[in-house]
Amino acid sequence: MCYNFLMKVSELGEFGLIDLLARMISDSEDNQTKPHQKLIVGIGDDAAAWHSDTSTQLATVDSMIQDVHFSLSTISWKELGWKSLAINLSDIAAMGGVPEYALVSLALPEDTEVEDVAALYEGMIELGQQFQVAIVGGDTCESPVVSITVSVLGGRPDKNILRRSNARPGDSIAVTGYLGSASAGLEMLSGKSHFSPEASAYLRDAFHRPLPRIVEGQLLVKKGLTTAIDISDGLLSDLRHICQASNVSARVEADRLPIHNTVRDNFGERALELALGGGEDYELLFTGTEKAIGSVKAEAPCPVNVIGEITAGQPGEISLFDNKGNPVSVRETGWEHFKPG
Amino acid sequence: MCYNFLMKVSELGEFGLIDLLARMISDSEDNQTKPHQKLIVGIGDDAAAWHSDTSTQLATVDSMIQDVHFSLSTISWKELGWKSLAINLSDIAAMGGVPEYALVSLALPEDTEVEDVAALYEGMIELGQQFQVAIVGGDTCESPVVSITVSVLGGRPDKNILRRSNARPGDSIAVTGYLGSASAGLEMLSGKSHFSPEASAYLRDAFHRPLPRIVEGQLLVKKGLTTAIDISDGLLSDLRHICQASNVSARVEADRLPIHNTVRDNFGERALELALGGGEDYELLFTGTEKAIGSVKAEAPCPVNVIGEITAGQPGEISLFDNKGNPVSVRETGWEHFKPG
Repeated sequence: MCYNFLMKVSELGEFGLIDLLARMISDSEDNQTKPHQKLIVGIGDDAAAWHSDTSTQLATVDSMIQDVHFSLSTISWKELGWKSLAINLSDIAAMGGVPEYALVSLALPEDTEVEDVAALYEGMIELGQQFQVAIVGGDTCESPVVSITVSVLGGRPDKNILRRSNARPGDSIAVTGYLGSASAGLEMLSGKSHFSPEASAYLRDAFHRPLPRIVEGQLLVKKGLTTAIDISDGLLSDLRHICQASNVSARVEADRLPIHNTVRDNFGERALELALGGGEDYELLFTGTEKAIGSVKAEAPCPVNVIGEITAGQPGEISLFDNKGNPVSVRETGWEHFKPG
Repeated sequence: MCYNFLMKVSELGEFGLIDLLARMISDSEDNQTKPHQKLIVGIGDDAAAWHSDTSTQLATVDSMIQDVHFSLSTISWKELGWKSLAINLSDIAAMGGVPEYALVSLALPEDTEVEDVAALYEGMIELGQQFQVAIVGGDTCESPVVSITVSVLGGRPDKNILRRSNARPGDSIAVTGYLGSASAGLEMLSGKSHFSPEASAYLRDAFHRPLPRIVEGQLLVKKGLTTAIDISDGLLSDLRHICQASNVSARVEADRLPIHNTVRDNFGERALELALGGGEDYELLFTGTEKAIGSVKAEAPCPVNVIGEITAGQPGEISLFDNKGNPVSVRETGWEHFKPG
């Protein structure tokens, strides 16, 4: 083993830390796995995946921590329950899977009101029912801040899953839904600007009640696509994850980014920045042949838009162009926890 | 739905809260489960369990929160990693299952040293290797306090699992290993008393490096036993969980409790109290016929001791007797988070 441990987590950054832990685990793996375990994807994709007979099992986990991922001054407990489950369902969606079971670990200050915890569960149950996900277990304990960790188990009846590492030069790049709405919602909730009731409701839901693209993820597999990620860190950041995992580069056309009218109308020039760098939209970002994507678009229950192309350049490099083919520079490039300084 | 929400979590208590959430979920279940889902155990046993073809799937989750479950002034990061995984493996053991996969969600202050996080993972990997458990996924994020949530998935090749609800009057009650060692370890680490190096090492390991009874749990199933729980809250508290779930009462003989010499020698009269009420031993507490338990004892790699009998009295009632058959009263009765006031 040869790792550089002599720094703080904030210097290494979230992705650096995940990388290091993934290497530690893979170095230890020879002695670790049972003969019947056929791990396909470990740490470093949207969810872990392994084969079991003819099917594929999927598992993912994500936490939401008070004052890091949410503020109780803006989110309701019910929305918090919804979102805690939604961000995990989104990871299963990004693998093309069917979510089945959820385990919930709740850490709460002891003066938390029981009705708030009940509302949190109502939000989770409501979303769970929508996608037939059963909440099967949990754990509650005391903590100075509210922290909700949800694990979701799911699967596919076959071995076809969506990976980050299958993008090929010539693939079109497409996204479901709209980009930047969630971060516009966060800006609205943090700021003092005035928004119409309709705009306000749309933006709030975009940030607090994302709809995981479960149906769309399975549609991608059905149409023969093999590459996807869900947009949690922001378009550029998540597209870079695909490019790095696939050893390719990408070209994005700014004018083709799907931005909701509410965001365009209320955020003007900043709309593009939000669409490129804003996180937490939980839309699917995927690549494939023009024909396959056209076929997805024809059947998808939500908007699907091609926004660029995978190219053969420097792995991980993303170029952005306006509608005249001129390069566009952007400030925001997606975010990560523990930002390297 | 008819729940009493008008109180704080600390007034309702951890078990009351779990009960309430379990009822909310079961009320919602009709619309929630997919036809192919055959949930056997939801919230309220050591792990969730469901059937999948001919086998049983198991899943559990538990969190460890800084200054609630551990103090960084006494536990090493490597021990913390070990224990975070161990307490979850113990839940799988208590169902008679084979643990297979672990998902880890880490919440860390941003000034955490990378070498500490690496040590945490070393501890988890070391224990994982011992039981061939693969760490397949995870999530890291920022938080004001260290919080580690581990989810473990496992299974059994058949449908025979250990439940809390199968105890019958006439069953003997038995435990693996020793009782009270972990809480004696906690007292040692919190106090100023002097202990010999050997005693100190034994007590520290008992509290920080519990060995999940994976092999023993599977042995119980092999010998035809059907009732078990792991001792996390304390003997009396966890025995009460079995009695309540099984609608039976129990009689415990104080003189038969297996207490390690180190605890007897260093804690004198308090040893019994620690054995009865101290939590976190992660031993298995189980019931069954005298013959079946004898057969377990003959093959188990650890001490197995009969400590009492299941009786037909008031559900959940536990009576404690000395070796002359006289009732013994005890102060400690196990603990729970969010203690009701």
